[in-house]
Amino acid sequence: FLKNPKTVGITCVPFSGGQPKGGVDDGPVEMMRFGVLDQIQDMGYNIELSDGMDKYQTMKPADDPPIGKMKNPRYVSMAARRVAEQVRAQCEKGNIAVTLGGDHSIGMGTLVGSSSVYGDDLCVIWVDAHADINTPDTTESGNLHGCPLSFVLGICDAESPFDWIKPCIRKDRLVYIGLRDVDATEKAILRKHNIKAFSMHDVDRHGIGKVVEMALDHVNKDRTLPVHMSFDVDALDPSVAPATGTPVRGGLTFREGHYICEAVAETGCLVSLDLVEVNPALGDPESLRQTVAVGCSLVRCSLGESLL
Amino acid sequence: FLKNPKTVGITCVPFSGGQPKGGVDDGPVEMMRFGVLDQIQDMGYNIELSDGMDKYQTMKPADDPPIGKMKNPRYVSMAARRVAEQVRAQCEKGNIAVTLGGDHSIGMGTLVGSSSVYGDDLCVIWVDAHADINTPDTTESGNLHGCPLSFVLGICDAESPFDWIKPCIRKDRLVYIGLRDVDATEKAILRKHNIKAFSMHDVDRHGIGKVVEMALDHVNKDRTLPVHMSFDVDALDPSVAPATGTPVRGGLTFREGHYICEAVAETGCLVSLDLVEVNPALGDPESLRQTVAVGCSLVRCSLGESLL
Amino acid sequence: FLKNPKTVGITCVPFSGGQPKGGVDDGPVEMMRFGVLDQIQDMGYNIELSDGMDKYQTMKPADDPPIGKMKNPRYVSMAARRVAEQVRAQCEKGNIAVTLGGDHSIGMGTLVGSSSVYGDDLCVIWVDAHADINTPDTTESGNLHGCPLSFVLGICDAESPFDWIKPCIRKDRLVYIGLRDVDATEKAILRKHNIKAFSMHDVDRHGIGKVVEMALDHVNKDRTLPVHMSFDVDALDPSVAPATGTPVRGGLTFREGHYICEAVAETGCLVSLDLVEVNPALGDPESLRQTVAVGCSLVRCSLGESLL
Ligand SMILES: [Mn+2]
Ligand SMILES: [Mn+2]
Ligand SMILES: [Mn+2]
Ligand SMILES: [Mn+2]
Ligand SMILES: [Mn+2]
Ligand SMILES: [Mn+2]
Repeated sequence: FLKNPKTVGITCVPFSGGQPKGGVDDGPVEMMRFGVLDQIQDMGYNIELSDGMDKYQTMKPADDPPIGKMKNPRYVSMAARRVAEQVRAQCEKGNIAVTLGGDHSIGMGTLVGSSSVYGDDLCVIWVDAHADINTPDTTESGNLHGCPLSFVLGICDAESPFDWIKPCIRKDRLVYIGLRDVDATEKAILRKHNIKAFSMHDVDRHGIGKVVEMALDHVNKDRTLPVHMSFDVDALDPSVAPATGTPVRGGLTFREGHYICEAVAETGCLVSLDLVEVNPALGDPESLRQTVAVGCSLVRCSLGESLL
Repeated sequence: FLKNPKTVGITCVPFSGGQPKGGVDDGPVEMMRFGVLDQIQDMGYNIELSDGMDKYQTMKPADDPPIGKMKNPRYVSMAARRVAEQVRAQCEKGNIAVTLGGDHSIGMGTLVGSSSVYGDDLCVIWVDAHADINTPDTTESGNLHGCPLSFVLGICDAESPFDWIKPCIRKDRLVYIGLRDVDATEKAILRKHNIKAFSMHDVDRHGIGKVVEMALDHVNKDRTLPVHMSFDVDALDPSVAPATGTPVRGGLTFREGHYICEAVAETGCLVSLDLVEVNPALGDPESLRQTVAVGCSLVRCSLGESLL
Repeated sequence: FLKNPKTVGITCVPFSGGQPKGGVDDGPVEMMRFGVLDQIQDMGYNIELSDGMDKYQTMKPADDPPIGKMKNPRYVSMAARRVAEQVRAQCEKGNIAVTLGGDHSIGMGTLVGSSSVYGDDLCVIWVDAHADINTPDTTESGNLHGCPLSFVLGICDAESPFDWIKPCIRKDRLVYIGLRDVDATEKAILRKHNIKAFSMHDVDRHGIGKVVEMALDHVNKDRTLPVHMSFDVDALDPSVAPATGTPVRGGLTFREGHYICEAVAETGCLVSLDLVEVNPALGDPESLRQTVAVGCSLVRCSLGESLL
């Protein structure tokens, strides 16, 4: 699918407006400080960095009162729209588009951006403890990092300021891995729309090898369609990735997280990737180091680093 | 099987006479303090609490010298007999009978109680690091929490003060999950009576999903018989449930423990449940909190709480 | 295969010359202090101890400058040659030959020794985070504990002082389990010579049960050939075996490590065993105790200790 399969187009999104905890906007810079760019280059890739990383912070509106339950709606919308443009630019060049967050609200941006190039062929693998599919009506917290999928799937009417988002992802081309903390409202949405999800219960039942195979079979039976993977580090167990805003016990092990990335890389279908919710402000220095290290490692594995 | 499938009948058994470490009698009160009753109600259940929780402590005989190797035999017998009555009463009402221990010697009580209503159709899933099947002759320690199954299976002649216990559980309707510390005498008993056991070796070989399926197939091929599950928290790895009297390394993970409960709940056959060997006196406050939390969580999952 | 299947012939090799960190030469004595000999006897075995354990330290040459990149080449060669003689003597008597290291360079000694008795029927299961198959040319570090397999497989010309080693192990009778830190040069060697390896990715994909079955099927389809297992404790995750010189994240769990040993023991084909790279000098006392304990436990499981 890629014109430039040896070029990784990286978009850094220092953004925390989709949830209440400061610090997740420092995720991208900490991953770069840890050397993720050099590591990717050492794998033989060229790197093209999207510009204007600082704009994500300066674009914050002076006044951004809630709309309904939604918190920071204008800021989230503006940031996501910019992400969409930057990711589309990377995809149009034929680069592998890697987006480093930031909180998971930016996922609506990457999905709009990537699907604007790959169309509704785009398959989405959402690796997360959470379903992130609440609508502006069903969300309890109003934090928009719990809502990105409802917009791009067209499950809710995206009203202003999100009316620039048109449904762009097919419900049968979305699959979850790692769910274990899903709101009752979200469970209802998943059931109603028949969206495929592999919870931690399924990982235990079948093993991660079989689960990834089933997940890929569901969205991309013949491994002929382009794939976007959105990896929320809270999919990992808190013992593996402690520095994140909404940790949930009973998550993916270090090895299972890497296995998913390796197996997706093996398909050769990955066209875009999010790595989100690394929050360097949470936990002690060792927690931070560990979480940043695992984030970088997941990115490398998704790009083809393998054990043998 | 249940007349009142939406009512949970809870029997608290603050009892530590089946083993030498004080504190395990505080298990039920700590689980209640953690909110297990509210949590169960929040799942939509009614709760009926067996009364006279304090009697388990006041019934302790002034003098209770060993009989053969058995320690505290009169006290263990009296407590188990009371448990049997309380559990029978809950089962007769058609409630799901949940018994919170206390040490595992009370398991002879719940099995007598539940089987007095469900007969020898009752299937038993014993989740434990230990086989708890020593006889008064084979036990080395004399601690009766290591002996409950020998009484109810009729493997030994239950002499006074245990002569009120008649064999009530069929050997081919008992299955173990999680064994990893089994006495040589117990291994001989399991082999002689052809009792099915899935050790941690089997969990590693097959994965927990397959093991639970095989365990259920062994005792309850068509999922048409009533099931009692007796869950000793020491089945879990000590890193998951540290506050217990006889921890053994290499146990079930947090996820595997929950998987068992979820999978048993899915059968719709569970009629009675023990959750035992939470000992709040062992370990630091965090160990305690963690063990109590996991105990409550296992109860909820056994009652149908699920991830999706 | 064994004339004396109830005798374990133990060779202690307090040797650290194959890598730079002192302390790994204290591995054997710490395992004996922990009671490994008594533990093996309690399993019903006789023990024959190879003599002259102290000679491994006194044989160190006064002067041993590098040859090419190889560090301590004369010392490593002399020690390995002595290991080969001691292991051959144990195998000739028909004992199960257990070698306690010391660093993994001694593996060339045990393989020469065991294969001198069992011939090229000998199957080798190498459990390790590393491939240990660099040649004197490809090694970057020059540490010979990363090279033993290249000598015995005849992949490189074993020049002086290693010219006493003739190719003695067939490439299709070697299989790895646990790899996760393999040099690019080693990856090329594995591919060129078509050597079978199960990395941690494979353990995640298939589960340890299936991986061990596939590994045994590869080298010993009918379970009719003698087997040597070389177990480097760094195959285990650092959280399980922290006191080792080159720990690598994402390793075998406590249970998976034991499962391998139990499953190999079940074949009845094990004729010789290495347990290497326990380094008591690394880490705090608890790390040490834990690593030594797991080392002893793996030896016992390889000799047939089982859960049921
Ligand atoms: Mn998320
Ligand atoms: Mn999440
Ligand atoms: Mn028990
Ligand atoms: Mn137990
Ligand atoms: Mn090694
Ligand atoms: Mn190694």
